[in-house]
Parts: sequence; structure tokens; C-alpha cells
Amino acid sequence: MPQGVPSVIPDDGLTTRARRNQPVLAVHTGDGKGKSTAAFGMAMRAWNAGLDIGVFQFVKSAKWKVGEESALTALGRLHEETGQGAPVQWHKMGEGWSWIRHAGGETEHAEQAAQGWAEIRRRIIDQTHQFYVLDEFTYPLNWGWIDVDDVVEVLRAREGRQHVVITGRRAPAALLDAADLVTEMVKTRHPMDAGRKGQRGIEW
Amino acid sequence: MPQGVPSVIPDDGLTTRARRNQPVLAVHTGDGKGKSTAAFGMAMRAWNAGLDIGVFQFVKSAKWKVGEESALTALGRLHEETGQGAPVQWHKMGEGWSWIRHAGGETEHAEQAAQGWAEIRRRIIDQTHQFYVLDEFTYPLNWGWIDVDDVVEVLRAREGRQHVVITGRRAPAALLDAADLVTEMVKTRHPMDAGRKGQRGIEW
Repeated sequence: MPQGVPSVIPDDGLTTRARRNQPVLAVHTGDGKGKSTAAFGMAMRAWNAGLDIGVFQFVKSAKWKVGEESALTALGRLHEETGQGAPVQWHKMGEGWSWIRHAGGETEHAEQAAQGWAEIRRRIIDQTHQFYVLDEFTYPLNWGWIDVDDVVEVLRAREGRQHVVITGRRAPAALLDAADLVTEMVKTRHPMDAGRKGQRGIEW
Repeated sequence: MPQGVPSVIPDDGLTTRARRNQPVLAVHTGDGKGKSTAAFGMAMRAWNAGLDIGVFQFVKSAKWKVGEESALTALGRLHEETGQGAPVQWHKMGEGWSWIRHAGGETEHAEQAAQGWAEIRRRIIDQTHQFYVLDEFTYPLNWGWIDVDDVVEVLRAREGRQHVVITGRRAPAALLDAADLVTEMVKTRHPMDAGRKGQRGIEW
């Protein structure tokens, strides 16, 4: 099969162009490396294509400042200054979502996760962004903190051109069923198996 | 096992710190998506950690201007202007390697690939970069255009702190044996199966 030629032409009444522009729901799952990293790599592409980017991290500690965050937010500032690329917003549950006023006291993780999804839900309905990364989103789904049926319903009904990439191990079946693109990252060998710890620039 | 704790403490005479700073050879292989994208995502981390980056693309046509190239070279320019991050060089076989003077006439692909590896070899010996992406490098290896034993020998003997990420399907066994980190990207579902063509910001 020549590269770039679909194996099936679907009987969906869409033109090739309309079908090409359908928004993509991608899921990166599996126990291997690269699930989040590939999602952030896709965000670089999206930035270059001028798609407004919103990243929502559901698990990583706020203290865990990943290199991708620095690089992508630097690209976002570059857009503000020069017009190249697209805006980039980066939100983390670990430090309390930036849009929530904290009245003191700790918010439980389950409640924080629910608040995160409620905001993403609003943004998808408002078509706020064109490229969403929901990083480590499978965990609150699996722990029952966020209702997977609600997520699938909102994603299936999303309008306009809103691409969504979801990362995390053990993606729920209902989410996989809704996805256009599923990649499983399989761990074949990892330096930690050989007694090495992670290092800056490689692991974060 | 707590996160970040190695499963085995090797008897290699190294301190944890020395072991942590060993350079990594990573291979992204398999038929799924995300091999190159995850490598470029890692390059974002490396940029943020101040590691000098050299990307060498072995197959993609020069006309195929990927979004990651625009984004990473923008980050490289940002480094030149502000000092943030690190330098980024991006070289493509498809348009003729930039360091080769063209005396007119077409160079064969096999010869171009060999020239690409010869240059990377020199750079690894000179410790020119600290983070190399050899994108789609498994193809010239598999086609016999570049000798895999020579590659493995140069990679095993490399000095200093030089991380290398190699991408492509069907990575040769000798390369996998030399790698510290191997991830196989497994295709579970792809939009092209449903008759969609690729689109800008998602596929490139």
C-alpha cells in the first residue's frame, strides 16, 4: 500500500477534505516510555501549525518541572512576541489548577481531578483550544474520580477542530473505543532495570 | 516498587551519581506512531537541560518540513538570543547534508546515508553534541548502507556525556543489544485505517 493512501474509503458521505480535517482523539497508553513525551512532541507540531494549545497535567507534582513545560511555554512566549506558532497554556493539578481560587485548606486529589475535568469540559464546549493534552488522565479515570462515560460523551460531541491527546497507563476500554488513534508504548528495556536512576534532560 | 527506585543495584563499581550521569542510548522502534515524535519530545527536555542538540534525519524528504523542526529550531534561535536552553542543529539527508559541498550531480541515497553516518561518527568522537537524534536511522542500517557493527562500536566507545536516540522500524538486534532504553511503539488503531488522510498539526 503506497504511503499516505488510506486502506479503506469510508461510506460516511464526507469529502476527503472534510474527513482529513476531522479532529483526532489520540490515546497513548502502555507501560513503556514516551507516552507523554510523544504527546508533547505532537504539541510542537500543533504549535507550528498555529493550533491553540492547552496542556492539563493530572498527576505530576508541581515540583516536578518537566523540560517539555519549559520548552513549550517558551514557544508560547515566542508566539506572543513574534506571532510565530500559536499560544500555549500549561496547567497542573499538582500545584492547584491556576483558575481556582484557593480559600485555604487542602483540596483532596479526587476533588482536584474533578475540578480539572469540569474546566476542560467547559473549554471543549467553548472551543477554547484546538489541541488539548490531557496528561496522565487515565489515572483519575481508573480511580473513579472522573466519570469515563461523561468524558467519552463530551469528547464524541465536541465541535469544531479540537484535537485531544490523552496519556496514561491502562486506558479504559470506553476511551479506547472512542479514540481514532491508539498507540501502546511497550517497555522493552529501561535503564532503571540496570540500576540507573533518572537524569535531567532524559527523564524530565 | 517505589517510583524512581532502581530494581537492581549493579555491581559496577560506580557511585549512584556516576551511574546516573552515564549517557543513554535509546531506541524507539515498532510499527506504531510516536517513535520520532517522542524523540523530538526528549529533545525538548534536553534543550531545557542545556544539552547541545544535533538532529540528523535519514529518510524524510527535504520537502517534508515537520513541525518539530520548526519548533526545535525556534528554540535554538531563542537560545542564541536569550541564553535559555541550548543550541539546536537540524540536518536532513533529503536535501543533501548541509556540511557537504555539492559539485553538481545527484548523490545516491546509499552514499548520502554513508556520508551522514561518517559525519555523526566524527561528531561523536569530537563530542560535538550532548543529545543526538538519529531519526529513521534503522532504514539505512537495514538496507546495508551503513554498517551496524561500526555504529555499535562507535556508540559503545563514545566518551563524555552524549545521549543518543535512534528511531525507526525493525531496529537491528545488535543495536537493541547496545541500547539502554528500548521502547516499541505498537499500533493499536490509526485514523488511516478508517480512511482518513494525515493532516497538518497532527501528522507533521
